[in-house]
Amino acid sequence: MTEKSPALQIALAYHEAWTKKALDKAMSYIAEDIVCDAPAGRIEGAAAYRAFMEPFVQSLRGATMIAAFGDDETALVMYDTTTVPVPSAPGAECVTVKEGKITYSRFLFDRAPFQAARR
Amino acid sequence: MTEKSPALQIALAYHEAWTKKALDKAMSYIAEDIVCDAPAGRIEGAAAYRAFMEPFVQSLRGATMIAAFGDDETALVMYDTTTVPVPSAPGAECVTVKEGKITYSRFLFDRAPFQAARR
Repeated sequence: MTEKSPALQIALAYHEAWTKKALDKAMSYIAEDIVCDAPAGRIEGAAAYRAFMEPFVQSLRGATMIAAFGDDETALVMYDTTTVPVPSAPGAECVTVKEGKITYSRFLFDRAPFQAARR
Repeated sequence: MTEKSPALQIALAYHEAWTKKALDKAMSYIAEDIVCDAPAGRIEGAAAYRAFMEPFVQSLRGATMIAAFGDDETALVMYDTTTVPVPSAPGAECVTVKEGKITYSRFLFDRAPFQAARR
C-alpha cells in the first residue's frame, strides 16, 4: 500500500461507512452531482446513486478490502463482499475525489451471479 | 498515479503485451504456478491461465487503462476493453508479483454481457 493519499482517505472512509451499512454517512462522501458508470449503465446524481446502493447494502453480510491505492484525485479499490444472494461478490471502484467528495465512480462487479440468484 | 513500483512495472508490461495480442510475451510475466481467482472460479497454472486468456485476447479490439497503482508486491489496475461480442468490457486485476512474475491474480469483470452475447 502507498501512503494514504487525499483521494484514498475519502474512498476508504466511504468504503468503511457502507460496509457498516451506515448509508447516510457513506452518502456524506458522495457529491450531489456524482456520475457513476456501473455495469448496467450510467447513474447520475446522489439520489439515484443512493437508490442503486441501498438494496446492495441491505443484502450485505460482510466485506473485506483486497487492495486500495490512490493519489491526489484518484483512488482505486478492490474488495470482496458476502451478500445474501451471492456468497462472494467482489467489486472494484475507481473514484475521482474533489474537495472531499466522490464526483465520479467507475464501478465494476460481476452481475452474472446476481442475475442467476434472481432466476 | 504513484511512481511505478516493481509490481506495477510487471503488471503494466503484462497489460501492454496482452492488449497488443502478444500472448507469448504476456505469458512471460506469468508464473508457471499462477493462481487466478476469476469470476467463474479458480484457474491454476500457466497453461490453464493461457487457455482462459486466449479467446478473450482473440476477440479484443482495443483497451484503455483507467487507473494503475502498485507497491513492492501488489499492483491494482482497472481498464476498459472493446471486444467483438461486448463493446465496453471493463476489467480489474489485483496481482501479486514475485521475482518479476505474476503469481496470483484476482480478476474481475462483468460476465453478464458476455453471457447475453452468447444467447
